[in-house]
Amino acid sequence: MMPTDTKRSIFFVSDHTGLTVEALGHSLMARFEELSVRYETVPFINSTSKARELLQRVNQAALQDGKRPIVFSSITNPEILAILNSANARVLDLFKTYLAELEQELGQASSSRVGRYHGIVDLARYQQRMQAIDFALATDDGIGLSNYQDADIVLVGVSRAGKTPTCLYLGMQYGIRAANYPLADDDFERLALPEELVPFHNQLFGLTIDPLRLQQIRQERKPNSYYASLKQCEFEVKQAEKLFASKGIRFLNVTASSIEEITAGIMQMAGLERG
Amino acid sequence: MMPTDTKRSIFFVSDHTGLTVEALGHSLMARFEELSVRYETVPFINSTSKARELLQRVNQAALQDGKRPIVFSSITNPEILAILNSANARVLDLFKTYLAELEQELGQASSSRVGRYHGIVDLARYQQRMQAIDFALATDDGIGLSNYQDADIVLVGVSRAGKTPTCLYLGMQYGIRAANYPLADDDFERLALPEELVPFHNQLFGLTIDPLRLQQIRQERKPNSYYASLKQCEFEVKQAEKLFASKGIRFLNVTASSIEEITAGIMQMAGLERG
Repeated sequence: MMPTDTKRSIFFVSDHTGLTVEALGHSLMARFEELSVRYETVPFINSTSKARELLQRVNQAALQDGKRPIVFSSITNPEILAILNSANARVLDLFKTYLAELEQELGQASSSRVGRYHGIVDLARYQQRMQAIDFALATDDGIGLSNYQDADIVLVGVSRAGKTPTCLYLGMQYGIRAANYPLADDDFERLALPEELVPFHNQLFGLTIDPLRLQQIRQERKPNSYYASLKQCEFEVKQAEKLFASKGIRFLNVTASSIEEITAGIMQMAGLERG
Repeated sequence: MMPTDTKRSIFFVSDHTGLTVEALGHSLMARFEELSVRYETVPFINSTSKARELLQRVNQAALQDGKRPIVFSSITNPEILAILNSANARVLDLFKTYLAELEQELGQASSSRVGRYHGIVDLARYQQRMQAIDFALATDDGIGLSNYQDADIVLVGVSRAGKTPTCLYLGMQYGIRAANYPLADDDFERLALPEELVPFHNQLFGLTIDPLRLQQIRQERKPNSYYASLKQCEFEVKQAEKLFASKGIRFLNVTASSIEEITAGIMQMAGLERG
Protein backbone atom coordinates (compact mmCIF):
# COMPACT_ATOMS: atom_id res chain seq x y z
CA MET A 1 0.00 0.00 0.00
CA MET A 2 1.06 3.56 -0.66
CA PRO A 3 1.55 5.80 2.33
CA THR A 4 -0.85 8.74 2.02
CA ASP A 5 -0.41 11.23 4.83
CA THR A 6 3.35 11.58 5.06
CA LYS A 7 5.09 14.88 4.49
CA ARG A 8 5.66 16.05 0.96
CA SER A 9 9.31 16.66 0.06
CA ILE A 10 10.36 20.07 -1.20
CA PHE A 11 13.82 20.32 -2.77
CA PHE A 12 15.74 23.52 -3.39
CA VAL A 13 18.31 22.66 -6.06
CA SER A 14 21.18 24.84 -7.20
CA ASP A 15 24.49 24.51 -9.03
CA HIS A 16 25.90 27.02 -6.53
CA THR A 17 25.15 27.87 -2.85
CA GLY A 18 21.39 27.42 -3.10
CA LEU A 19 20.74 30.62 -1.12
CA THR A 20 18.76 32.32 -3.88
CA VAL A 21 16.57 29.35 -4.69
CA GLU A 22 15.99 28.77 -0.97
CA ALA A 23 14.94 32.37 -0.42
CA LEU A 24 12.53 32.44 -3.35
CA GLY A 25 11.23 28.93 -2.68
CA HIS A 26 10.60 29.61 1.01
CA SER A 27 9.01 32.99 0.21
CA LEU A 28 6.61 31.26 -2.17
CA MET A 29 5.84 28.38 0.18
CA ALA A 30 5.22 30.86 3.01
CA ARG A 31 2.10 31.97 1.12
CA PHE A 32 0.42 28.62 1.77
CA GLU A 33 -1.11 27.56 5.06
CA GLU A 34 -0.83 24.37 7.07
CA LEU A 35 1.54 22.57 4.80
CA SER A 36 2.91 19.23 5.79
CA VAL A 37 6.24 19.35 4.06
CA ARG A 38 9.92 18.76 4.67
CA TYR A 39 12.54 20.96 3.07
CA GLU A 40 15.92 19.99 1.72
CA THR A 41 18.49 22.23 0.09
CA VAL A 42 20.82 20.61 -2.40
CA PRO A 43 23.67 22.92 -3.40
CA PHE A 44 26.50 22.48 -5.90
CA ILE A 45 24.67 20.26 -8.42
CA ASN A 46 27.17 21.17 -11.10
CA SER A 47 27.68 17.87 -12.94
CA THR A 48 25.48 15.31 -14.65
CA SER A 49 26.64 12.62 -12.24
CA LYS A 50 25.54 14.67 -9.22
CA ALA A 51 22.26 15.36 -11.02
CA ARG A 52 21.68 11.64 -11.56
CA GLU A 53 22.29 10.91 -7.88
CA LEU A 54 19.81 13.63 -6.98
CA LEU A 55 17.30 12.25 -9.50
CA GLN A 56 17.31 8.95 -7.64
CA ARG A 57 16.75 10.66 -4.30
CA VAL A 58 13.88 12.75 -5.64
CA ASN A 59 12.22 9.69 -7.16
CA GLN A 60 12.68 7.77 -3.93
CA ALA A 61 11.08 10.62 -1.96
CA ALA A 62 8.12 10.47 -4.34
CA LEU A 63 7.68 6.78 -3.53
CA GLN A 64 8.15 7.21 0.21
CA ASP A 65 5.89 10.25 0.51
CA GLY A 66 3.20 8.90 -1.76
CA LYS A 67 3.19 12.38 -3.33
CA ARG A 68 5.44 13.77 -5.99
CA PRO A 69 8.02 16.21 -4.59
CA ILE A 70 8.22 19.85 -5.61
CA VAL A 71 11.64 20.86 -6.88
CA PHE A 72 12.63 24.52 -7.02
CA SER A 73 15.59 24.83 -9.36
CA SER A 74 18.00 27.57 -10.34
CA ILE A 75 20.05 25.27 -12.59
CA THR A 76 20.79 26.74 -16.00
CA ASN A 77 22.97 24.06 -17.61
CA PRO A 78 20.59 22.36 -20.09
CA GLU A 79 22.06 18.86 -19.67
CA ILE A 80 21.78 18.96 -15.88
CA LEU A 81 18.33 20.49 -16.06
CA ALA A 82 17.14 17.77 -18.43
CA ILE A 83 18.07 15.11 -15.88
CA LEU A 84 16.21 16.99 -13.16
CA ASN A 85 13.18 17.44 -15.40
CA SER A 86 12.92 13.69 -15.86
CA ALA A 87 12.15 13.23 -12.14
CA ASN A 88 8.76 12.16 -10.83
CA ALA A 89 8.32 15.67 -9.43
CA ARG A 90 6.92 19.09 -10.15
CA VAL A 91 10.02 21.03 -11.18
CA LEU A 92 9.79 24.82 -10.98
CA ASP A 93 12.57 26.38 -12.99
CA LEU A 94 13.12 29.75 -11.32
CA PHE A 95 15.48 31.17 -13.90
CA LYS A 96 14.15 30.19 -17.31
CA THR A 97 11.26 32.61 -17.78
CA TYR A 98 13.12 35.61 -16.45
CA LEU A 99 16.40 34.98 -18.25
CA ALA A 100 14.48 34.90 -21.53
CA GLU A 101 12.70 38.15 -20.68
CA LEU A 102 15.94 39.81 -19.62
CA GLU A 103 17.77 38.64 -22.75
CA GLN A 104 15.11 40.35 -24.80
CA GLU A 105 15.13 43.51 -22.71
CA LEU A 106 18.93 43.82 -22.45
CA GLY A 107 19.55 42.74 -26.03
CA GLN A 108 22.20 40.18 -25.15
CA ALA A 109 22.42 36.47 -24.46
CA SER A 110 22.87 35.32 -20.88
CA SER A 111 25.86 33.23 -19.92
CA SER A 112 26.31 30.75 -17.10
CA ARG A 113 30.02 31.47 -17.06
CA VAL A 114 29.72 34.99 -15.66
CA GLY A 115 29.74 35.85 -11.95
CA ARG A 116 27.45 34.46 -9.33
CA TYR A 117 25.59 36.68 -6.91
CA HIS A 118 26.75 34.79 -3.84
CA GLY A 119 30.30 34.41 -5.07
CA ILE A 120 33.02 37.04 -4.89
CA VAL A 121 31.85 38.93 -7.96
CA ASP A 122 33.22 42.29 -6.91
CA LEU A 123 36.29 41.86 -4.69
CA ALA A 124 36.28 45.43 -3.34
CA ARG A 125 32.63 45.15 -2.36
CA TYR A 126 33.17 41.72 -0.82
CA GLN A 127 36.11 42.98 1.24
CA GLN A 128 33.99 45.89 2.40
CA ARG A 129 31.45 43.41 3.79
CA MET A 130 34.18 41.42 5.57
CA GLN A 131 35.70 44.62 6.96
CA ALA A 132 32.26 45.72 8.13
CA ILE A 133 31.95 42.47 10.13
CA ASP A 134 35.36 43.11 11.68
CA PHE A 135 34.21 46.65 12.42
CA ALA A 136 31.06 45.47 14.18
CA LEU A 137 33.11 43.10 16.34
CA ALA A 138 35.69 45.78 17.13
CA THR A 139 33.07 48.33 18.17
CA ASP A 140 30.55 46.06 19.92
CA ASP A 141 28.89 47.11 23.14
CA GLY A 142 30.72 50.39 23.57
CA ILE A 143 34.25 49.15 22.91
CA GLY A 144 36.62 50.54 20.29
CA LEU A 145 35.42 54.13 20.52
CA SER A 146 38.45 55.30 18.56
CA ASN A 147 36.94 53.60 15.50
CA TYR A 148 33.55 55.30 15.74
CA GLN A 149 34.61 58.00 13.31
CA ASP A 150 34.41 55.37 10.56
CA ALA A 151 30.90 54.23 11.53
CA ASP A 152 28.08 54.54 9.00
CA ILE A 153 25.69 54.15 11.91
CA VAL A 154 25.84 53.83 15.69
CA LEU A 155 23.03 51.83 17.31
CA VAL A 156 21.96 52.77 20.82
CA GLY A 157 19.48 51.09 23.12
CA VAL A 158 18.99 49.16 26.32
CA SER A 159 20.92 45.98 27.00
CA ARG A 160 19.55 42.93 25.06
CA ALA A 161 17.52 44.94 22.58
CA GLY A 162 19.30 43.12 19.75
CA LYS A 163 22.01 45.64 18.90
CA THR A 164 24.86 43.16 18.36
CA PRO A 165 23.21 40.78 15.84
CA THR A 166 21.75 43.80 14.05
CA CYS A 167 25.22 45.33 13.64
CA LEU A 168 26.64 42.02 12.43
CA TYR A 169 23.86 41.58 9.89
CA LEU A 170 24.22 45.17 8.67
CA GLY A 171 27.87 44.37 7.97
CA MET A 172 27.38 40.92 6.53
CA GLN A 173 24.41 41.64 4.28
CA TYR A 174 24.84 45.31 3.43
CA GLY A 175 28.52 46.15 4.01
CA ILE A 176 27.46 48.84 6.50
CA ARG A 177 29.87 49.72 9.32
CA ALA A 178 27.68 49.63 12.40
CA ALA A 179 28.89 50.27 15.94
CA ASN A 180 26.70 49.87 19.01
CA TYR A 181 26.65 51.45 22.42
CA PRO A 182 24.54 50.34 25.38
CA LEU A 183 22.53 52.84 27.36
CA ALA A 184 22.97 52.37 31.09
CA ASP A 185 21.55 53.49 34.43
CA ASP A 186 23.54 56.68 34.52
CA ASP A 187 22.18 57.76 31.13
CA PHE A 188 18.61 57.00 32.19
CA GLU A 189 18.92 58.98 35.41
CA ARG A 190 20.44 62.00 33.70
CA LEU A 191 18.24 61.50 30.62
CA ALA A 192 21.23 62.46 28.55
CA LEU A 193 23.38 60.75 25.96
CA PRO A 194 26.68 59.29 27.10
CA GLU A 195 29.34 61.96 26.53
CA GLU A 196 31.20 59.65 24.17
CA LEU A 197 28.29 59.62 21.73
CA VAL A 198 27.79 63.35 21.37
CA PRO A 199 30.22 63.75 18.43
CA PHE A 200 28.34 61.00 16.56
CA HIS A 201 24.88 62.44 16.91
CA ASN A 202 24.14 62.24 13.20
CA GLN A 203 25.00 58.54 13.09
CA LEU A 204 22.86 57.55 16.07
CA PHE A 205 19.91 55.21 15.59
CA GLY A 206 17.85 53.79 18.44
CA LEU A 207 16.45 50.31 19.00
CA THR A 208 13.58 49.89 21.39
CA ILE A 209 11.57 46.87 22.48
CA ASP A 210 8.45 45.94 24.38
CA PRO A 211 9.36 45.73 28.12
CA LEU A 212 7.61 42.36 28.50
CA ARG A 213 9.64 40.86 25.67
CA LEU A 214 12.80 42.42 27.09
CA GLN A 215 12.03 40.84 30.44
CA GLN A 216 11.73 37.40 28.81
CA ILE A 217 15.06 37.80 27.03
CA ARG A 218 16.87 39.05 30.13
CA GLN A 219 15.26 36.36 32.27
CA GLU A 220 16.92 33.70 30.08
CA ARG A 221 20.22 35.46 30.50
CA LYS A 222 20.14 36.29 34.22
CA PRO A 223 17.16 34.57 35.85
CA ASN A 224 15.42 36.43 38.69
CA SER A 225 17.87 39.31 38.68
CA TYR A 226 16.91 42.95 39.21
CA TYR A 227 18.21 43.46 35.65
CA ALA A 228 15.54 41.04 34.40
CA SER A 229 12.68 42.42 36.50
CA LEU A 230 9.70 43.87 34.66
CA LYS A 231 9.99 47.03 36.71
CA GLN A 232 13.55 47.65 35.59
CA CYS A 233 12.79 46.73 31.97
CA GLU A 234 9.85 49.14 31.92
CA PHE A 235 11.95 51.91 33.44
CA GLU A 236 14.82 51.49 31.01
CA VAL A 237 12.61 51.31 27.91
CA LYS A 238 10.59 54.35 28.97
CA GLN A 239 13.72 56.39 29.62
CA ALA A 240 15.43 55.24 26.43
CA GLU A 241 12.43 56.25 24.33
CA LYS A 242 12.26 59.62 26.12
CA LEU A 243 15.93 60.11 25.36
CA PHE A 244 15.47 59.26 21.66
CA ALA A 245 12.54 61.67 21.39
CA SER A 246 14.25 64.53 23.22
CA LYS A 247 17.45 64.23 21.18
CA GLY A 248 15.71 63.68 17.84
CA ILE A 249 17.18 60.21 17.40
CA ARG A 250 15.32 58.02 14.90
CA PHE A 251 14.38 54.68 16.36
CA LEU A 252 12.70 51.39 15.59
CA ASN A 253 10.71 49.03 17.79
CA VAL A 254 12.17 45.56 17.22
CA THR A 255 9.80 43.48 19.37
CA ALA A 256 8.06 41.56 16.58
CA SER A 257 10.74 41.90 13.93
CA SER A 258 13.43 39.59 12.64
CA ILE A 259 17.01 40.72 12.09
CA GLU A 260 16.24 40.86 8.37
CA GLU A 261 13.26 43.14 8.96
CA ILE A 262 15.10 45.34 11.46
CA THR A 263 18.09 45.89 9.19
CA ALA A 264 15.96 46.54 6.08
CA GLY A 265 14.01 49.05 8.19
CA ILE A 266 17.18 50.77 9.40
CA MET A 267 18.62 50.93 5.88
CA GLN A 268 15.45 52.67 4.72
CA MET A 269 14.88 54.97 7.70
CA ALA A 270 18.51 56.04 7.91
CA GLY A 271 18.82 56.44 4.14
CA LEU A 272 21.82 54.10 4.00
CA GLU A 273 23.05 52.51 0.79
CA ARG A 274 24.81 49.18 0.46
CA GLY A 275 28.54 49.59 1.06
CA MET B 1 18.02 65.96 -26.20
CA MET B 2 17.73 62.59 -24.53
CA PRO B 3 20.77 61.25 -22.75
CA THR B 4 21.76 57.95 -24.33
CA ASP B 5 24.72 56.40 -22.56
CA THR B 6 23.77 56.78 -18.93
CA LYS B 7 23.28 53.82 -16.64
CA ARG B 8 20.03 51.92 -16.75
CA SER B 9 18.14 51.79 -13.45
CA ILE B 10 17.28 48.42 -11.95
CA PHE B 11 14.76 48.43 -9.08
CA PHE B 12 14.16 45.59 -6.65
CA VAL B 13 10.70 46.20 -5.20
CA SER B 14 9.13 44.38 -2.29
CA ASP B 15 6.33 44.83 0.23
CA HIS B 16 8.67 43.35 2.83
CA THR B 17 12.48 43.33 3.34
CA GLY B 18 13.38 43.01 -0.33
CA LEU B 19 16.01 40.35 0.41
CA THR B 20 14.39 37.67 -1.75
CA VAL B 21 13.79 39.88 -4.75
CA GLU B 22 17.32 41.27 -4.44
CA ALA B 23 18.83 37.78 -4.34
CA LEU B 24 16.90 36.54 -7.37
CA GLY B 25 17.27 39.80 -9.27
CA HIS B 26 21.03 39.97 -8.70
CA SER B 27 21.42 36.27 -9.52
CA LEU B 28 19.66 36.85 -12.84
CA MET B 29 21.54 40.05 -13.65
CA ALA B 30 24.84 38.30 -12.84
CA ARG B 31 24.29 36.20 -15.96
CA PHE B 32 24.81 39.23 -18.20
CA GLU B 33 28.15 40.78 -19.02
CA GLU B 34 29.35 44.36 -19.03
CA LEU B 35 26.14 45.93 -17.90
CA SER B 36 25.99 49.62 -17.22
CA VAL B 37 23.34 49.68 -14.55
CA ARG B 38 22.61 51.08 -11.13
CA TYR B 39 20.71 49.06 -8.54
CA GLU B 40 18.21 50.28 -6.01
CA THR B 41 16.29 48.21 -3.49
CA VAL B 42 12.91 49.56 -2.40
CA PRO B 43 11.50 47.61 0.56
CA PHE B 44 8.20 47.93 2.41
CA ILE B 45 6.03 49.08 -0.54
CA ASN B 46 2.90 48.00 1.30
CA SER B 47 0.42 50.76 0.43
CA THR B 48 -0.92 52.36 -2.72
CA SER B 49 0.45 55.74 -1.66
CA LYS B 50 3.99 54.33 -1.35
CA ALA B 51 3.48 52.63 -4.71
CA ARG B 52 2.48 55.91 -6.34
CA GLU B 53 5.59 57.66 -4.97
CA LEU B 54 7.71 54.84 -6.33
CA LEU B 55 5.92 55.03 -9.69
CA GLN B 56 7.03 58.65 -10.02
CA ARG B 57 10.62 57.78 -9.22
CA VAL B 58 10.68 54.91 -11.70
CA ASN B 59 9.24 57.12 -14.44
CA GLN B 60 11.73 59.84 -13.63
CA ALA B 61 14.59 57.35 -13.85
CA ALA B 62 13.30 56.33 -17.30
CA LEU B 63 13.52 59.96 -18.43
CA GLN B 64 16.92 60.57 -16.87
CA ASP B 65 18.49 57.35 -18.13
CA GLY B 66 16.98 57.57 -21.60
CA LYS B 67 16.17 53.86 -21.13
CA ARG B 68 13.23 52.30 -19.39
CA PRO B 69 14.16 50.80 -16.01
CA ILE B 70 13.84 47.12 -15.17
CA VAL B 71 11.74 46.47 -12.08
CA PHE B 72 11.98 43.13 -10.27
CA SER B 73 8.91 42.80 -8.07
CA SER B 74 7.73 40.40 -5.39
CA ILE B 75 4.57 42.40 -4.68
CA THR B 76 1.43 40.27 -4.54
CA ASN B 77 -1.25 42.82 -3.62
CA PRO B 78 -3.11 43.38 -6.93
CA GLU B 79 -3.83 47.08 -6.34
CA ILE B 80 -0.20 47.88 -5.54
CA LEU B 81 1.01 45.74 -8.41
CA ALA B 82 -1.33 47.51 -10.86
CA ILE B 83 0.26 50.85 -9.97
CA LEU B 84 3.74 49.41 -10.49
CA ASN B 85 2.71 47.85 -13.80
CA SER B 86 1.67 51.25 -15.12
CA ALA B 87 5.27 52.49 -14.94
CA ASN B 88 7.37 53.20 -18.01
CA ALA B 89 9.47 50.14 -17.16
CA ARG B 90 9.89 46.45 -17.79
CA VAL B 91 8.30 44.92 -14.70
CA LEU B 92 9.28 41.33 -13.89
CA ASP B 93 6.80 39.85 -11.46
CA LEU B 94 8.81 37.17 -9.64
CA PHE B 95 5.91 35.60 -7.80
CA LYS B 96 2.98 35.43 -10.20
CA THR B 97 3.93 32.48 -12.39
CA TYR B 98 5.11 30.31 -9.54
CA LEU B 99 2.29 31.06 -7.14
CA ALA B 100 -0.17 29.96 -9.82
CA GLU B 101 1.80 26.75 -10.42
CA LEU B 102 2.04 26.05 -6.69
CA GLU B 103 -1.66 26.71 -6.14
CA GLN B 104 -2.39 24.07 -8.73
CA GLU B 105 0.12 21.60 -7.35
CA LEU B 106 -0.79 22.07 -3.67
CA GLY B 107 -4.52 22.32 -4.34
CA GLN B 108 -5.01 25.46 -2.27
CA ALA B 109 -5.13 29.21 -2.83
CA SER B 110 -2.16 31.29 -1.74
CA SER B 111 -2.62 34.07 0.76
CA SER B 112 -0.62 37.21 1.30
CA ARG B 113 -1.63 37.23 4.95
CA VAL B 114 0.45 34.20 5.94
CA GLY B 115 4.03 34.36 7.18
CA ARG B 116 6.97 35.88 5.40
CA TYR B 117 10.20 34.04 4.89
CA HIS B 118 12.34 36.82 6.30
CA GLY B 119 9.99 37.52 9.18
CA ILE B 120 9.76 35.58 12.42
CA VAL B 121 7.62 32.79 11.00
CA ASP B 122 8.79 30.12 13.41
CA LEU B 123 9.80 31.67 16.75
CA ALA B 124 11.71 28.61 18.00
CA ARG B 125 13.74 28.46 14.82
CA TYR B 126 14.35 32.20 14.86
CA GLN B 127 15.57 32.08 18.45
CA GLN B 128 17.86 29.22 17.54
CA ARG B 129 19.49 31.44 14.92
CA MET B 130 19.91 34.28 17.42
CA GLN B 131 21.32 31.89 20.03
CA ALA B 132 23.70 30.50 17.43
CA ILE B 133 25.05 34.02 16.83
CA ASP B 134 25.54 34.45 20.59
CA PHE B 135 27.25 31.06 20.64
CA ALA B 136 29.67 32.05 17.86
CA LEU B 137 30.58 35.22 19.75
CA ALA B 138 30.99 33.36 23.05
CA THR B 139 33.27 30.71 21.53
CA ASP B 140 35.27 32.84 19.10
CA ASP B 141 38.99 32.36 18.67
CA GLY B 142 39.41 29.70 21.31
CA ILE B 143 37.45 31.36 24.11
CA GLY B 144 34.52 29.81 25.98
CA LEU B 145 35.78 26.24 25.84
CA SER B 146 33.19 25.21 28.42
CA ASN B 147 30.52 25.76 25.76
CA TYR B 148 32.14 23.57 23.11
CA GLN B 149 30.05 20.59 24.13
CA ASP B 150 27.07 22.36 22.53
CA ALA B 151 28.88 23.03 19.25
CA ASP B 152 27.49 21.58 16.02
CA ILE B 153 30.87 22.22 14.47
CA VAL B 154 34.29 23.53 15.55
CA LEU B 155 36.31 25.30 12.88
CA VAL B 156 40.09 25.10 13.05
CA GLY B 157 42.69 26.82 10.95
CA VAL B 158 45.49 29.36 10.85
CA SER B 159 44.92 32.91 12.02
CA ARG B 160 43.00 35.06 9.45
CA ALA B 161 41.70 32.14 7.39
CA GLY B 162 38.16 33.50 7.85
CA LYS B 163 36.97 31.39 10.78
CA THR B 164 35.10 34.15 12.65
CA PRO B 165 32.85 35.46 9.84
CA THR B 166 32.21 31.87 8.76
CA CYS B 167 31.00 30.95 12.27
CA LEU B 168 28.80 34.05 12.43
CA TYR B 169 27.27 33.30 9.05
CA LEU B 170 26.67 29.66 9.96
CA GLY B 171 24.71 30.92 12.96
CA MET B 172 22.89 33.73 11.24
CA GLN B 173 21.88 31.93 8.07
CA TYR B 174 21.64 28.31 9.17
CA GLY B 175 21.16 28.36 12.96
CA ILE B 176 24.30 26.23 13.33
CA ARG B 177 26.33 26.55 16.54
CA ALA B 178 29.87 27.01 15.32
CA ALA B 179 32.89 27.53 17.55
CA ASN B 180 36.36 28.28 16.25
CA TYR B 181 39.84 27.64 17.51
CA PRO B 182 43.06 29.03 16.06
CA LEU B 183 46.02 26.79 15.36
CA ALA B 184 49.26 28.26 16.64
CA ASP B 185 53.01 27.77 16.49
CA ASP B 186 53.06 25.15 19.18
CA ASP B 187 50.53 22.99 17.30
CA PHE B 188 52.51 23.31 14.07
CA GLU B 189 55.76 22.30 15.72
CA ARG B 190 54.26 19.29 17.45
CA LEU B 191 52.01 18.57 14.44
CA ALA B 192 49.29 17.71 16.91
CA LEU B 193 45.89 19.10 17.79
CA PRO B 194 45.63 21.39 20.78
CA GLU B 195 44.76 19.21 23.80
CA GLU B 196 41.52 21.15 24.29
CA LEU B 197 40.19 20.02 20.93
CA VAL B 198 40.72 16.29 21.32
CA PRO B 199 37.27 15.64 22.87
CA PHE B 200 35.61 17.41 19.94
CA HIS B 201 37.33 15.49 17.18
CA ASN B 202 34.06 14.60 15.46
CA GLN B 203 33.00 18.23 15.29
CA LEU B 204 36.28 19.53 13.84
CA PHE B 205 36.34 21.08 10.38
CA GLY B 206 39.38 22.77 8.86
CA LEU B 207 39.70 25.93 6.82
CA THR B 208 42.77 26.40 4.69
CA ILE B 209 43.85 29.17 2.34
CA ASP B 210 46.46 29.96 -0.26
CA PRO B 211 49.59 31.28 1.51
CA LEU B 212 49.89 34.22 -0.88
CA ARG B 213 46.33 35.32 -0.12
CA LEU B 214 46.94 34.80 3.59
CA GLN B 215 50.01 37.00 3.37
CA GLN B 216 47.95 39.80 1.78
CA ILE B 217 45.31 39.61 4.50
CA ARG B 218 47.85 39.55 7.33
CA GLN B 219 49.84 42.32 5.71
CA GLU B 220 46.81 44.61 5.99
CA ARG B 221 46.48 43.66 9.62
CA LYS B 222 50.11 43.79 10.75
CA PRO B 223 52.25 45.27 7.98
CA ASN B 224 55.78 43.91 7.58
CA SER B 225 55.53 41.63 10.59
CA TYR B 226 57.00 38.14 10.79
CA TYR B 227 53.38 36.98 11.17
CA ALA B 228 52.58 38.48 7.74
CA SER B 229 55.72 37.15 5.99
CA LEU B 230 55.21 34.75 3.10
CA LYS B 231 57.62 32.33 4.73
CA GLN B 232 55.56 32.13 7.90
CA CYS B 233 52.27 31.93 5.99
CA GLU B 234 53.60 29.09 3.84
CA PHE B 235 54.85 27.22 6.91
CA GLU B 236 51.60 27.54 8.83
CA VAL B 237 49.39 26.53 5.91
CA LYS B 238 51.59 23.53 5.08
CA GLN B 239 51.57 22.35 8.68
CA ALA B 240 47.84 22.95 9.12
CA GLU B 241 47.03 20.90 6.02
CA LYS B 242 49.37 18.12 7.20
CA LEU B 243 47.59 18.14 10.52
CA PHE B 244 44.14 17.94 8.90
CA ALA B 245 45.27 15.05 6.73
CA SER B 246 46.96 13.10 9.51
CA LYS B 247 43.98 13.46 11.87
CA GLY B 248 41.34 12.82 9.22
CA ILE B 249 39.82 16.28 9.59
CA ARG B 250 37.66 17.36 6.64
CA PHE B 251 38.72 20.73 5.31
CA LEU B 252 37.93 23.34 2.71
CA ASN B 253 40.17 25.77 0.84
CA VAL B 254 38.55 29.19 1.16
CA THR B 255 40.92 31.26 -1.00
CA ALA B 256 38.52 32.07 -3.85
CA SER B 257 35.26 31.57 -1.98
CA SER B 258 32.79 33.94 -0.41
CA ILE B 259 31.34 33.40 3.06
CA GLU B 260 28.15 32.18 1.38
CA GLU B 261 30.07 29.61 -0.66
CA ILE B 262 32.22 28.51 2.29
CA THR B 263 29.25 27.96 4.59
CA ALA B 264 27.17 26.17 1.94
CA GLY B 265 30.20 23.94 1.33
CA ILE B 266 30.64 23.22 5.04
CA MET B 267 26.94 22.45 5.48
CA GLN B 268 27.19 19.91 2.67
CA MET B 269 30.57 18.37 3.52
CA ALA B 270 29.80 18.07 7.22
CA GLY B 271 26.27 16.81 6.59
CA LEU B 272 24.75 19.54 8.74
CA GLU B 273 21.09 20.47 8.63
CA ARG B 274 19.61 23.89 9.32
CA GLY B 275 19.02 24.41 13.02
